[in-house]
Amino acid sequence: MSRDPSFDVERLGEPTYPSPLVLSSKKGDQISDYVTDDDRVLLDSSLRFYREALAEGLEPPSMEIAGPRENIFFDPKTVCAAIVTCGGLCPGLNDVIRALVMSLYHHYGVRKILGIRYGYYGMIDYHKEVPLALTPEIVENIDKMGGSWLGSSRGNQNIVDMIDFMARRGINILFTVGGDGTQRGALAIAEELQRRSLQVAVVGVPKTIDNDISYVERTFGFETAFSVAKDVIDGAHMEAMGALNGICIVKLMGRHAGFLATQATIASGDVNFLLIPEIPFDLEGNRGFLKALEDRILARRHALVVVAEGAGQELLADEVKRLGTDASGNVRLADIGQYLHQRINDYFRDRGISVTVRYIDPSYYVRSLPAVPTDKVFCQQLAHNAVHAAMSGRTAMLVGIWNDKFTHVPIETAVSKRKQIDPDGPLWLSAVESTGQPIRMVN
Amino acid sequence: MSRDPSFDVERLGEPTYPSPLVLSSKKGDQISDYVTDDDRVLLDSSLRFYREALAEGLEPPSMEIAGPRENIFFDPKTVCAAIVTCGGLCPGLNDVIRALVMSLYHHYGVRKILGIRYGYYGMIDYHKEVPLALTPEIVENIDKMGGSWLGSSRGNQNIVDMIDFMARRGINILFTVGGDGTQRGALAIAEELQRRSLQVAVVGVPKTIDNDISYVERTFGFETAFSVAKDVIDGAHMEAMGALNGICIVKLMGRHAGFLATQATIASGDVNFLLIPEIPFDLEGNRGFLKALEDRILARRHALVVVAEGAGQELLADEVKRLGTDASGNVRLADIGQYLHQRINDYFRDRGISVTVRYIDPSYYVRSLPAVPTDKVFCQQLAHNAVHAAMSGRTAMLVGIWNDKFTHVPIETAVSKRKQIDPDGPLWLSAVESTGQPIRMVN
Amino acid sequence: MSRDPSFDVERLGEPTYPSPLVLSSKKGDQISDYVTDDDRVLLDSSLRFYREALAEGLEPPSMEIAGPRENIFFDPKTVCAAIVTCGGLCPGLNDVIRALVMSLYHHYGVRKILGIRYGYYGMIDYHKEVPLALTPEIVENIDKMGGSWLGSSRGNQNIVDMIDFMARRGINILFTVGGDGTQRGALAIAEELQRRSLQVAVVGVPKTIDNDISYVERTFGFETAFSVAKDVIDGAHMEAMGALNGICIVKLMGRHAGFLATQATIASGDVNFLLIPEIPFDLEGNRGFLKALEDRILARRHALVVVAEGAGQELLADEVKRLGTDASGNVRLADIGQYLHQRINDYFRDRGISVTVRYIDPSYYVRSLPAVPTDKVFCQQLAHNAVHAAMSGRTAMLVGIWNDKFTHVPIETAVSKRKQIDPDGPLWLSAVESTGQPIRMVN
Amino acid sequence: MSRDPSFDVERLGEPTYPSPLVLSSKKGDQISDYVTDDDRVLLDSSLRFYREALAEGLEPPSMEIAGPRENIFFDPKTVCAAIVTCGGLCPGLNDVIRALVMSLYHHYGVRKILGIRYGYYGMIDYHKEVPLALTPEIVENIDKMGGSWLGSSRGNQNIVDMIDFMARRGINILFTVGGDGTQRGALAIAEELQRRSLQVAVVGVPKTIDNDISYVERTFGFETAFSVAKDVIDGAHMEAMGALNGICIVKLMGRHAGFLATQATIASGDVNFLLIPEIPFDLEGNRGFLKALEDRILARRHALVVVAEGAGQELLADEVKRLGTDASGNVRLADIGQYLHQRINDYFRDRGISVTVRYIDPSYYVRSLPAVPTDKVFCQQLAHNAVHAAMSGRTAMLVGIWNDKFTHVPIETAVSKRKQIDPDGPLWLSAVESTGQPIRMVN
Repeated sequence: MSRDPSFDVERLGEPTYPSPLVLSSKKGDQISDYVTDDDRVLLDSSLRFYREALAEGLEPPSMEIAGPRENIFFDPKTVCAAIVTCGGLCPGLNDVIRALVMSLYHHYGVRKILGIRYGYYGMIDYHKEVPLALTPEIVENIDKMGGSWLGSSRGNQNIVDMIDFMARRGINILFTVGGDGTQRGALAIAEELQRRSLQVAVVGVPKTIDNDISYVERTFGFETAFSVAKDVIDGAHMEAMGALNGICIVKLMGRHAGFLATQATIASGDVNFLLIPEIPFDLEGNRGFLKALEDRILARRHALVVVAEGAGQELLADEVKRLGTDASGNVRLADIGQYLHQRINDYFRDRGISVTVRYIDPSYYVRSLPAVPTDKVFCQQLAHNAVHAAMSGRTAMLVGIWNDKFTHVPIETAVSKRKQIDPDGPLWLSAVESTGQPIRMVN
Repeated sequence: MSRDPSFDVERLGEPTYPSPLVLSSKKGDQISDYVTDDDRVLLDSSLRFYREALAEGLEPPSMEIAGPRENIFFDPKTVCAAIVTCGGLCPGLNDVIRALVMSLYHHYGVRKILGIRYGYYGMIDYHKEVPLALTPEIVENIDKMGGSWLGSSRGNQNIVDMIDFMARRGINILFTVGGDGTQRGALAIAEELQRRSLQVAVVGVPKTIDNDISYVERTFGFETAFSVAKDVIDGAHMEAMGALNGICIVKLMGRHAGFLATQATIASGDVNFLLIPEIPFDLEGNRGFLKALEDRILARRHALVVVAEGAGQELLADEVKRLGTDASGNVRLADIGQYLHQRINDYFRDRGISVTVRYIDPSYYVRSLPAVPTDKVFCQQLAHNAVHAAMSGRTAMLVGIWNDKFTHVPIETAVSKRKQIDPDGPLWLSAVESTGQPIRMVN
Repeated sequence: MSRDPSFDVERLGEPTYPSPLVLSSKKGDQISDYVTDDDRVLLDSSLRFYREALAEGLEPPSMEIAGPRENIFFDPKTVCAAIVTCGGLCPGLNDVIRALVMSLYHHYGVRKILGIRYGYYGMIDYHKEVPLALTPEIVENIDKMGGSWLGSSRGNQNIVDMIDFMARRGINILFTVGGDGTQRGALAIAEELQRRSLQVAVVGVPKTIDNDISYVERTFGFETAFSVAKDVIDGAHMEAMGALNGICIVKLMGRHAGFLATQATIASGDVNFLLIPEIPFDLEGNRGFLKALEDRILARRHALVVVAEGAGQELLADEVKRLGTDASGNVRLADIGQYLHQRINDYFRDRGISVTVRYIDPSYYVRSLPAVPTDKVFCQQLAHNAVHAAMSGRTAMLVGIWNDKFTHVPIETAVSKRKQIDPDGPLWLSAVESTGQPIRMVN
Repeated sequence: MSRDPSFDVERLGEPTYPSPLVLSSKKGDQISDYVTDDDRVLLDSSLRFYREALAEGLEPPSMEIAGPRENIFFDPKTVCAAIVTCGGLCPGLNDVIRALVMSLYHHYGVRKILGIRYGYYGMIDYHKEVPLALTPEIVENIDKMGGSWLGSSRGNQNIVDMIDFMARRGINILFTVGGDGTQRGALAIAEELQRRSLQVAVVGVPKTIDNDISYVERTFGFETAFSVAKDVIDGAHMEAMGALNGICIVKLMGRHAGFLATQATIASGDVNFLLIPEIPFDLEGNRGFLKALEDRILARRHALVVVAEGAGQELLADEVKRLGTDASGNVRLADIGQYLHQRINDYFRDRGISVTVRYIDPSYYVRSLPAVPTDKVFCQQLAHNAVHAAMSGRTAMLVGIWNDKFTHVPIETAVSKRKQIDPDGPLWLSAVESTGQPIRMVN
């Protein structure tokens, strides 16, 4: 905990306008309370951590709690807010857009709200994508559909051009709904705005199907995605059960973190092997995956395997090298699903065991459907808190959830590292308990 | 209609036992009626057909109506029924198994019911797959799951071995739940049984995700499959909408018939191009698919394409030739989905139009989930009618539906040709009306 | 069949404009064909009916087949079409509205399309409900939601006022989406228009959650409604199973016809007793329902009962008398669900048998959700055919389906009687086979 | 925080057997870690709380973290575990039963597992309910169904009789899955066992559709229940939208706490008024609910109202008094839903405003369906942790979740008060932000 990053959130200035929300600053009066600057949640809620902090006599790291402030920075009448969604689709994008608009309009009385088309691409004037003027009527039912109603695109754009775009339209609040890369872009925008002394709030809503943003317990759409993935796994289970020595492999998203594959696996309750990027495994050898799979087949006559796309890349090092990086500079992943498919077939053929191996890759399907109800609640809460944060003049931050409380996280801190499953921790244990697979498949 | 096949159903002998169902043979007494041998449905319900038959003075072809008979051939006490499910999975298999057991047990009082494991494979003694003894308690909840609770396998087995298996266990009714190939196998079994003068009823329940059995309007599981496919298409629509000039291609099952892709397309309402085996199309040229796709993209900036796996094989003739046939002698299909993906990318790159092309292949997912309610009703009705048919001593037939009436169809007739979508008929028109695609994409 | 009603459909005049659909009138050219006036489907597709007709030397009754005509009556440029939805909600209403607009706009090039607000109420000028101008963009996504996007209302309005409303706006095609009462209203409108020699096409799309329109095999939304009802029954099954001698009663819609309750019951596969309006039953007595329920409870310790709201009204004759009729003149139904709840409790208490009785009435829930995929296909086909019919100049008719073909039915004929389940027929047999209840519960 | 209850969990004795789980006690070795007694989570994770504790120099209250222990109390070979489910149904009951069995069997090697039938009722010998012998095979698929596979019942039974029942069968671990009352019963059992010096672990899994157990952030099944309720609300929204001045009222479960109604309301995003037990409201008067409803109707022409069954009981004080208490001594609730229905109708009739009011009470439907994927994960984690706790010799406790960590809570502490929504807190604020209703409807 010694080199903890900063959780101090930047602000544009003193909040001098009274909030139009007419809440209360008194406990117990049955009126919802404003959040104060003293409301912070500890980074670590363990007693051990408390004791350590106590012993060191240091105030432990904590995060600002999100929520409406009694005084706000912006005069709602002068606000022009813009919303941009970037990167791959994620369930709940439209819920977030809708709730941002509803909150700006109904809670704060903001009347100028722009919907940027197709991600940062739409913030470049010469691309000629005209932003949409958003109102409650227009967004009323967009949450009934998946996808992004505004459109999205990958990659960042020229910062200067984007700021020109904002300046030309008088945008003084920008909501950036996107992942790691998008938020880095948002940070760069915020920094350039500051350099130009422009009082514009840039507030992110983190979006990642992989759930891998640091200091954010959970991102929206994730529960929907693993729920859909669970249905796919259910079908795969039936394929495995219905065939002679049936083996079914399901590949799920998860480049660097196996959260999606892991939660879907536990939800299914029928998976026998889960392979994720965080947990290395051998294929060959007495303690390797293939031997464990053989044992399972001989004992139970069917097996269900879930693999995250980023798992086992070390087994495919040559292929990874050959593939290089994509336009955004991300390492291209080798196809572990197809590779397993091949290797399993070979393995059993060599041993003269007749098996039926099927491979299912639902790809984009898990990310493009409308949000399930739990995510819909979450999306609204995130969006409302993003609006509260922006109106209070906070910037270069994103809204998250930590120890079950909505929080503000400096973007710099959130993108400083990638969240992964702790191989020693309780989630991976749940997965192993659910699958019954060997705790380590390494020789 | 001149060379119509026979619709005469074979019978094992005279039905001499009174049905235990205590129904009525009187209309209007508010008690369900037995079906008589005079209850037949016309093959063609058009007035034109009636007039032609009248002009020729011929009795037009008609099919036997399914249902309980007043007298039955088998003494329920002596019946040993067996159920086998073959081929690929299909939603509703467990509903059919469950309803066969329930009907045999509760309606007719049959107490010996065997569930064959893993298709015809399980009817070969040396494979040592012990059939399950089925009771209402055992099958009570299997319909809550997809797949085949008995297991399935592809391909036929040695007829003599299978009949030995049946003889050894005293099986005198065999329900074969499967597709084209399975029913051909069932026919061969029935013929061999006849040759040996064994009084065994072989009754098929047709199963095909492609819905391509002739003289059978609809097969079970089909509505579930296209409903699931529709969800996948919905997601794909969002992928297309959410990207700059987004094009999304969904490949669906359908080797020789495009029913699944077509119904899913209409159900979606958002598909712009549907490609099926029955309707040839050109890629290149002014009236070809790629030009039509370009027009769409330029006009609307996104496009959604659904392709059945058997579509456009003529475009891939070399590849098809190279692939040859599989173990069962079926021609291996070239991958039209991947091919389109490539060709579309190339086409737009060549024209300097930036597009985002995504490809989704849900593969087995559409066939492995539990049946939707409409299919659950259908499965039960099919299964009950299969039991009625078998108990009445009919054999070498399958149960189907025609002009909304459940029917008996000789297997020989049903497998004599493959059902396809009529390019001139109303279903294809519905598809074209729904997509708005050119009525012909041929130069 | 002797006093069959007429199936001749009225026409406004000679169709003189060539259809803009560019279909074909040639079989086998792989282009969808126009439907001709000779395309008719027999009312009865049974061989017996054919033989009778033959013996009598009479042409048997048949219905016009729906579909696009080569020549049409209206010049699309002069068309102003209006759509009105009336009566209670039904799944698929928005699919029908959407498809009517899409077909008018894209297939025929009609540019003036009005959406009437809140049923016939919105066709009275002094109610000041301004009709919506409908375009493909506006209706594009309304099918993602249940309900009626235009709003609906019950009851008819003054015919003269409605026709004034139409005349004032130049409406020459009116689509009436509604039930029995709505279509009677539509017929009255059509007749008055004729009296005034106004060339306006009035084409109905029948809508009834009870599926009780005559000469129409199935109405849209019905499959969705029974699918939702099936989920409710599944829950009720669990309530019955989970309690000591648990009895669960589910009441479903169905005033005069038990189709919804029956299909949901079969789909469930777990219901033990189904009570519908068409099948009278006794409560008391040795063959009555309560005794049968007692037998079931003693044998199996739980029971699941589904009752249609119109069932057993004869048992509640006094109550029905007391309730009288509602504003529209419909007899008010006594609450059979609550009555059964009470009587079952009393019966078992009197016998000293401890039971847990629970009552579930999902009421409007079954009718307000979005359409399932099978219904979505059906809604589009109905709507497209309604547009074809209207453009061809047909009037005072509705579109239906018969022997699996889309048809035109004169409204007068369709509303001449109410469709009910045939107690002697196969559907009720399926229900009895599924529940295992006594074939008659009458002393 | 001064009079905080104890969070010390009782133990049967020293854990002397090494766990068969072969986990690790070393961080960073990529093997899941055992939990130690030092692993505790703070009751309050706010920085303010930390500062207060620091100022007072006191160790703040904290809870034991759940999970596998390195040493366990019971020798698995000697364990006979029993599972009992009590009270009303709740989604996920079968997931919990299944996971308890799987964990006992596969993780610890326990071979004697009993399933008690019908709640505590089944633990009384003279009721003659024979417990089921549970194995992985038997419970494998029960999670595909809602309800309780073991059956349930309300109310407690004679403690002595239950202990005799346990003693006779050698039960030394008892899992009690149930609510408030059930856990009080479990506590009484644990105390009596202690009095008799019997070394039996009693471990609860809290179950409440109302989510109102203290010191437990969330209970299983709750997310499923509010997801189903959200669907019902969606339908109700359509009923309100589809009618002239349509008002739809949905009543949901929630006797003392409005969590279910609140989360479903936020998930819907379309609700205009939410009434829960924690927030009093007036009907009449200028700031009352009816006036607010009138304003809404006049402005927007439809309104959607969600009411928890325990809301507004103070408005019905006379009725509540009249109803008295039920057999278990619980106050019977007056029917606020029907009352609102009546009062709303009267109010608008008196003002001459024509409205269409519909009332939907899904009752048991929200609690009887299978668990959604997020709940399935949660059920397994709870059950595994319950098994770990029991095997470690803990007793008189239940498993919960707190600050996102699974915890042990002494039953006495958990049932000491009821959890409710904090009217000043963020959840109620989210509800008000989502509905847009007045922050207080009190004059």
